[in-house]
Formats: sequence, structure tokens, C-alpha cells
Amino acid sequence: MEITVTRTNSPKVKPDESSLVFGHEFTDHMFVMDYKEGQGWYDPRIVPYGPLTLDPSTMVFHYGQETFEGLKAYKAEDGTIQLFRPKDNIRRMNQSNDRLCIPAIDEDLFLEAIKAVVKIDEDWIPTSPGTSLYIRPFVIATDPFIGVKPSSTYMLMIILSPVGSYYKEGLNPTKIYVEDEYVRAVPGGTGYAKTGANYAASLKAQVEAHKKGYSQVLWLDGIERKYIEEVGTSNAFFKVDGKVHTAPLQGSILGGITRDTSIELLKSWGIEVIEEPFTIDDVMRWHQEGKLEEAFATGTAAVISPIGILGWKGNDIQINNQEIGKISQKLYDTITEIQNGKEKDTFDWIVRV
Amino acid sequence: MEITVTRTNSPKVKPDESSLVFGHEFTDHMFVMDYKEGQGWYDPRIVPYGPLTLDPSTMVFHYGQETFEGLKAYKAEDGTIQLFRPKDNIRRMNQSNDRLCIPAIDEDLFLEAIKAVVKIDEDWIPTSPGTSLYIRPFVIATDPFIGVKPSSTYMLMIILSPVGSYYKEGLNPTKIYVEDEYVRAVPGGTGYAKTGANYAASLKAQVEAHKKGYSQVLWLDGIERKYIEEVGTSNAFFKVDGKVHTAPLQGSILGGITRDTSIELLKSWGIEVIEEPFTIDDVMRWHQEGKLEEAFATGTAAVISPIGILGWKGNDIQINNQEIGKISQKLYDTITEIQNGKEKDTFDWIVRV
Ligand SMILES: Cc1ncc(COP(=O)(O)O)c(C=O)c1O
Ligand SMILES: Cc1ncc(COP(=O)(O)O)c(C=O)c1O
Repeated sequence: MEITVTRTNSPKVKPDESSLVFGHEFTDHMFVMDYKEGQGWYDPRIVPYGPLTLDPSTMVFHYGQETFEGLKAYKAEDGTIQLFRPKDNIRRMNQSNDRLCIPAIDEDLFLEAIKAVVKIDEDWIPTSPGTSLYIRPFVIATDPFIGVKPSSTYMLMIILSPVGSYYKEGLNPTKIYVEDEYVRAVPGGTGYAKTGANYAASLKAQVEAHKKGYSQVLWLDGIERKYIEEVGTSNAFFKVDGKVHTAPLQGSILGGITRDTSIELLKSWGIEVIEEPFTIDDVMRWHQEGKLEEAFATGTAAVISPIGILGWKGNDIQINNQEIGKISQKLYDTITEIQNGKEKDTFDWIVRV
Repeated sequence: MEITVTRTNSPKVKPDESSLVFGHEFTDHMFVMDYKEGQGWYDPRIVPYGPLTLDPSTMVFHYGQETFEGLKAYKAEDGTIQLFRPKDNIRRMNQSNDRLCIPAIDEDLFLEAIKAVVKIDEDWIPTSPGTSLYIRPFVIATDPFIGVKPSSTYMLMIILSPVGSYYKEGLNPTKIYVEDEYVRAVPGGTGYAKTGANYAASLKAQVEAHKKGYSQVLWLDGIERKYIEEVGTSNAFFKVDGKVHTAPLQGSILGGITRDTSIELLKSWGIEVIEEPFTIDDVMRWHQEGKLEEAFATGTAAVISPIGILGWKGNDIQINNQEIGKISQKLYDTITEIQNGKEKDTFDWIVRV
């Protein structure tokens, strides 16, 4: 299928790079593709960024049949545009689609679409340290019908947003609340998929944690309410006695691409990574025994986010004196330098546009 | 606040009452109200039914921050328009809103809005047996922003759809699949709220059950995978040895209004209703011992839906010879006759428009 292109007649003024915030500004173009039962995905096109017109009965407004992805494009010093592990995002999107009964998207066409829309808006890719072009593919169910069943029509869109750092504070260690009332996901549910449901379910815990002075929540498993799962929109890592622990992928957490990247890098540095279930009690015990050296969260938006404080059952524990840990810093530096082309891409993670 | 009214200039042709299906056709008008942080809900209005125009970054497309309700209006023989327990739907919508961090809606204004929009489109209320005007209030998060946090703007809409029976087969006993792989909701999650997340999570199980020849799934709890929860978009009841069992409201299932209506009616008929946890093994044992007299599901769409077959671990059990049970029939007749004004409303469930 050929991607058709309609260019905008009225390009927008680009935002000032120094005041970029996450997710508020969008570029001049977007990619759109439609799906209809019997016909499959059709009419891939790049069009001027603009609003959707949808009937109020459109399924996505009622039953949350939607999936999304998040990845970034970077401009290297020599001007090359670099995508970081886009094929992993595409593969994960189709896993999410499968869970949500959304028809799979051809992975080659998907990559071509990302490249094409990034290319057309390449002047929007910011170049200051910490900035990038955030790429948000998403699918919504578009049948104008309010019965509960999978839609027979969908739209895939890819929108682009020039972004600064996700956390305004930068790489500063965060204060994380260990959530013991609300549950995000359980095995058998949608936790491993990138779909609205998980984020909708997470809002209340996040709001309550903010009120208590924490920036995010650490989720525990929904069954026994003790196993460490993930932190907000990132995966959680704990360095204990030289080894690094992170939750295994068992259906309730998102398989983060930054998680996988971090695991690969850590292993390449000779650091053992243990993907086995561990509990909040383990973490507290490690802390008491003086073995908890570092904790950090990994995600596309913030890359690495050191955890400075963990609040659990009314007590705050301080990790690594609330300083950025060595491993956190090294992972952050290595990943961002691979992304912006300053470090060699020995893992074959970069796809050039 | 005054509800303003803008009438359509181009009324649609009304569908033929004999061929109504669920949720495909909508009336000439809709109710809309906006919310903005700092300002609250504002500009309640009835306008011609028509599409929404939304930025692709609108939060509801990404993070499923949305709630909805479903209730019905009926036209009695004397022409009165009857709403069935609308205040319970309104209260439940605000419970859902609370869970989803959506600001509460004034309950009096909400009821007034429902009445006003039903009144303006009253000619759309079908009158043949089994038909009604389905009322679908829903709220969506409308910030054009792709960070994960509660939106600062929302829209409440109320749309109306003339409907026939939800199940084309009518009151025929259904074939239900006991789901043991997928999970809909757990305590701590969003199960008790009417929000997209739960329906999105349910689609895959429903599709797989259809493929196996069942019309819906019976959900088991997500923790121990054995306690009976609910059936598709309805609550489940089992009559055993003269007593009726249904799952208690513990956070993972929707507190159905038809569930409550059925419990009230059963009690008024001197039938004991037990709202205590019970398992699929209990149901199977009751069946083997010949004590399982009837099973049925309750919900606004279908009112009462007798369960004829339950499929569990590869075996189908037949309930009440796949015939409509006495209690199922009596509940269906009583509820629908209260709704359409043929039976006296001794419980004060009807609100007249
Ligand atoms: C729930 C959740 N967990 C983890 C992550 C981290 O995944 P990734 O590293 O692919 O960005 C994300 C999002 O990006 C997320 O939304
Ligand atoms: C998940 C779920 N359970 C139960 C019900 C039954 O509730 P009610 O009787 O209020 O319609 C519904 C919907 O109507 C539902 O969506």
C-alpha cells in the first residue's frame, strides 16, 4: 500500500525548545489509516494535523476499545534522524491489539508510516539535550454503535509531539508511594497491553499519592498485594547487594522497552539481573539490612527515573541518600547517548529515518 | 442552571418499530454539558444530534477516562412517559465518576437533563411490546494532552436510541460460558464502575465464547478464579432449593439496578435472597444434587435473561431443561409491566417525565 501525502498549507509556529513540556504541542502532520471488516486496513495517508469528527455513539467513547504506543525520534549531531527500537513498539502494539480484539497492523507498513510522518515533520525534532520528538501511534474503535462487542471499524493515527523532559525536575530522585488500596491489573486482565483501561484504572491512586506529596505510585500485584509490579508508566528496578531485581513479565505489567534495554545493558556490564517475583517486604528487609543500593524506574518518557523515597504503610524509606545512583546515571547516560547518536549502537537498536 | 434548547431543522425519519435493533439509531436531539477546572460543569444544553469534533490528542482516545450509564424510558398506554429508577443510574454514574477522577455531576440537574431530552424526542419512544427508548449518558475526558493524569475538561452527553429487545431471540434461555482464562475486574480495580476499561477487558473472552457457540461469559473472580461474579453486562442469579443466590457487591462487579429490583421483588414475594460469595463448584454441585432450579441474568438491556446452559471445563450443564424458569418469567413480567405502566409501582421506582 502506498502512503499518500497531503501537506498542510498553514504550518504552525514551532514552540520554543527551552520551554517544551510533555504532550501539549503537536506537529503539522499526522498519519491516518482506516480499517473496515472485510476490507482490512486501508487508505494509509499523511494529512495536516487536525481534529476528528466522530458520532457521539462511537464505541471508543463508551467501551474503551483503544490501544496506543509511545516512542521517540532524535536528531543526531550530523542531522540523522534516529528512532529507538521502533519495531519493538510496533510488535507490542499488535500484542495490545490482540488483547483488545483490534485487527493486527502490518508491521512493515507501520514502520514505514512512522518514518514517513517523522520525515515530513523533521524540522519539529528538537535538538537541545533531553528533548526529542515523541511519537504516539494509537488505534480507536469507530463503529457508531453502543452494543458491547468489538468494533468493525477502526482508525490508526500517529501524532507527533516535540517534548522536553517528562519530569520537570529532570533526573532528580522521585518520591514514590507504595499503593496498597487500588489495583492496576491482574493476570488474565489487560495489564500487559498498552490500552486506556490500565491508565484509567490508575488515575485515582495517582491523584491520592500526589495529595500525600508523592510523584507516582508503585503498584503491587492485585492478588496477594505484595509483589512489586511497576511504577506509574514505568518499570521498577532495585539494586541489592550488587544484583538488580525487576518484576518478571507475567501478564499484569507492561513489558517496557526501556526495561528490556536496561536489562540488556546491565548484563553487558556484567551485572546480574534477576527477573523473579519479589515483594515489598523483601524491599523493606533489604533496606533494613543496608543492602538496597539503588532503585529506579524505566520508561520511554523519562528514560531513567531514580527513586529517592519509597512510602509504605506510613513510613518513608530513603534510598541511596536520595541521590542519583551510579547505575541509574550510567543507564541514563548510555541510553540517551545511543538515542542521540553520541554512543555507538552495538545492540542494533537504532533505526534511521 | 438553565438548560438551553436548540431544535433541529431537519428531523430524521423514525425507524420502523418492528425492526428495531439495539443501539444503532439515535434520535433528533442530545443533551450536552461541559466541564472546566475552576468553572465546574457549565452550559447545559439540548442541541441537534450530531458529531463531536475532537483533537487527536484528546485524552479519552488514549487513557480511557470515560464513564457511562444505561437506562430506559417507556411510554405507558395513557401516553405518560416513564423512567425506571433514573436516580439510581445518576447516583451510580457519580460513583463511577469518583473512581475515574471525573468531577461529580449535580444529581438534580442530571435528572432534569434526562427528562428534558426525552421529552423533546418523545415521539421517538416506541410503544410495541419489548421496545423502549434507551438512554445513554456518558462522560469523556477532553483535554488535548497526552500525559497520564486526570483531564481538566470533560463533556457529559446524553443520547437516546429507540430499541427493540437486546437479545434478538427474546426471553429464550441463553448458553453461557464460564470463563476461566480472562479476568474482567478485581477488588481495588474499576469493576464496580461503569467505565470503558471493564468492557474493553471483556471483549476477548466474549469473542472466544461466541466462537465456541456461547452467547456470553460468566465471570469468575480474578483472585481465586472460582467465585461467581456476573454475566456479560448483567448480574447472575441462581435459584437453589427455593432460595436465590447472587454475588455480593464487593467492588469487582457492577451493582446492577435490575439486580436490586429483582432482589426487592423476590423478597416481596417471600423468596429468600442470599448475597454471599458462592463458587462455580457450588453451582455444579447444586446441579448434580438436582437442587439448581433456575438461573438467570439481570440487566437494563434485556431485563431478565434465563440461563439455559452453562459451559464449564468442557462440559455443558443444562438448567431447568433449558426452559424459562417460573421466577425468571415472573420477574420479567413484573418488571416490564411496572416499566410500561401496566403494573402498579408500589416500590416508587417510576419517575414520570
Ligand atoms: C504502564 C507502563 N509501564 C511501563 C512503561 C515503560 O515502557 P517503555 O519503556 O516501553 O516506555 C510504560 C510506558 O511507556 C507504561 O505505560
Ligand atoms: C458489567 C455489568 N453488569 C451488570 C449490569 C446490569 O446493570 P443494570 O441492571 O443496572 O442495567 C450491566 C449493565 O447494565 C453491566 O454493564
